[in-house]
Amino acid sequence: MEYEGTHYHGWQFQPGLPTIQGELQEAVSCSLREVREVEGASRTDRGVHAFGQAAAFLTASPVPTPRLPVVLNSRLPKDIRVRQAREVPSDFKPRFEAYGKIYRYTFLCRAMESPFLRRFATRVDRRLNVASMQRAADCLVGRHDFSSFKNATKDHVETTIRDLFEIRVVEEESLVHVIVAGSAFLYNMVRNIAGTLLEVGLERRSADTMKEVLRARNRRAAGVNAEARGLCLIGVFFEKEALERGLLCKKLLLPLCTL
Amino acid sequence: MEYEGTHYHGWQFQPGLPTIQGELQEAVSCSLREVREVEGASRTDRGVHAFGQAAAFLTASPVPTPRLPVVLNSRLPKDIRVRQAREVPSDFKPRFEAYGKIYRYTFLCRAMESPFLRRFATRVDRRLNVASMQRAADCLVGRHDFSSFKNATKDHVETTIRDLFEIRVVEEESLVHVIVAGSAFLYNMVRNIAGTLLEVGLERRSADTMKEVLRARNRRAAGVNAEARGLCLIGVFFEKEALERGLLCKKLLLPLCTL
Repeated sequence: MEYEGTHYHGWQFQPGLPTIQGELQEAVSCSLREVREVEGASRTDRGVHAFGQAAAFLTASPVPTPRLPVVLNSRLPKDIRVRQAREVPSDFKPRFEAYGKIYRYTFLCRAMESPFLRRFATRVDRRLNVASMQRAADCLVGRHDFSSFKNATKDHVETTIRDLFEIRVVEEESLVHVIVAGSAFLYNMVRNIAGTLLEVGLERRSADTMKEVLRARNRRAAGVNAEARGLCLIGVFFEKEALERGLLCKKLLLPLCTL
Repeated sequence: MEYEGTHYHGWQFQPGLPTIQGELQEAVSCSLREVREVEGASRTDRGVHAFGQAAAFLTASPVPTPRLPVVLNSRLPKDIRVRQAREVPSDFKPRFEAYGKIYRYTFLCRAMESPFLRRFATRVDRRLNVASMQRAADCLVGRHDFSSFKNATKDHVETTIRDLFEIRVVEEESLVHVIVAGSAFLYNMVRNIAGTLLEVGLERRSADTMKEVLRARNRRAAGVNAEARGLCLIGVFFEKEALERGLLCKKLLLPLCTL
């Protein structure tokens, strides 16, 4: 699935508020005449976009699986689109079966807001030191306790240890993308990493402090939580090879991904 | 200036309707406390975007020229931004002094709408024959009577002869851009050219018919008027060299231009 998150209160259903899960469940119930819970692989926050969300639901509908995108899209608002559907085992939990995910955080470095990118990038007033950002990012790769990058949440989390496969900081014209690939992410983790890397890019924090931030296991050691609009869930991958192919994809670098 | 045209009834002021000229005049009157007419180089239609519009107004304000973008932007809505200001002779008419303009028309070729590009590209269901489109486009380059590509308008136009410097049809992922550079354009001319090239790309019309379309001097000989949302005024150039540099610019090809 793809969606522009600007007008939604995030993935998770909330009564009376527009949410991605709510819209999908509504589309399922209207078009398939079944009330179903749609489970997502990532509970994206309010204002966060997705170019490759994955979601699953049980259905007894006679609609053939390849027809589902067309059927659901006819009921979905224009800023949410189902790209593809396939059958999975009935106990499939996209959140737990994913091998990993790729997120992209985008900064726009220029003196004024962009009428075109204002929904998809967080603006900063000056150029960022991309080399320092990459050095700082490299410290985070591997298996670590990411407590310092986790915002408080009511969620029960068994462990704050996560595997970060790769972080790439890429400059493209006046955009700086932070591409993050990992097994799974704590609440607000990517935005907290992006916010901390931003402080490094602005040279308000040295790249070397990143190791100390990790070691502190304290949210206060890290930087600000970067704005939601700069974040996009690029893809959810159920096999290692698929994620690796995803990381090679040129589309990661386009200001707006297209398929 | 840059603007996303989605929510505006075009450049030209219309009482009671949101227009780009109206917003600019409002920003001038609020921030400089002067009621002035702001004249644009191109009267973009309802829904058409601009990445490089040029506009001029007279002012007696003591605000230094380099400060004008910041001052005006503080009053303008987020989807309109002034990038740069400079002084020109008091009788400067941007529309008539421009050496030429570059427009970009963008098609998105895929089975479903894109939540991200829906405001900036016109979707078509299948891939386009880009080579045929380029061949057809090449017939239009040069000095011609473009009556066949002009929609009826109340405007008095002295002549329907225009100089088209270059048309480039460029494929980029699932996008097809038509880049058009010319001295000046008739009402709806670029959208009519894009619509006719679309029919060629869809193989509903052969590339060779383009010469006959020109010769017909009849709007009915050309194809449909392509939707406004796919069109963006990339730049207005006051010197030949600036336009030529503009055509070399990599930014032309980005789905959304950034600076």
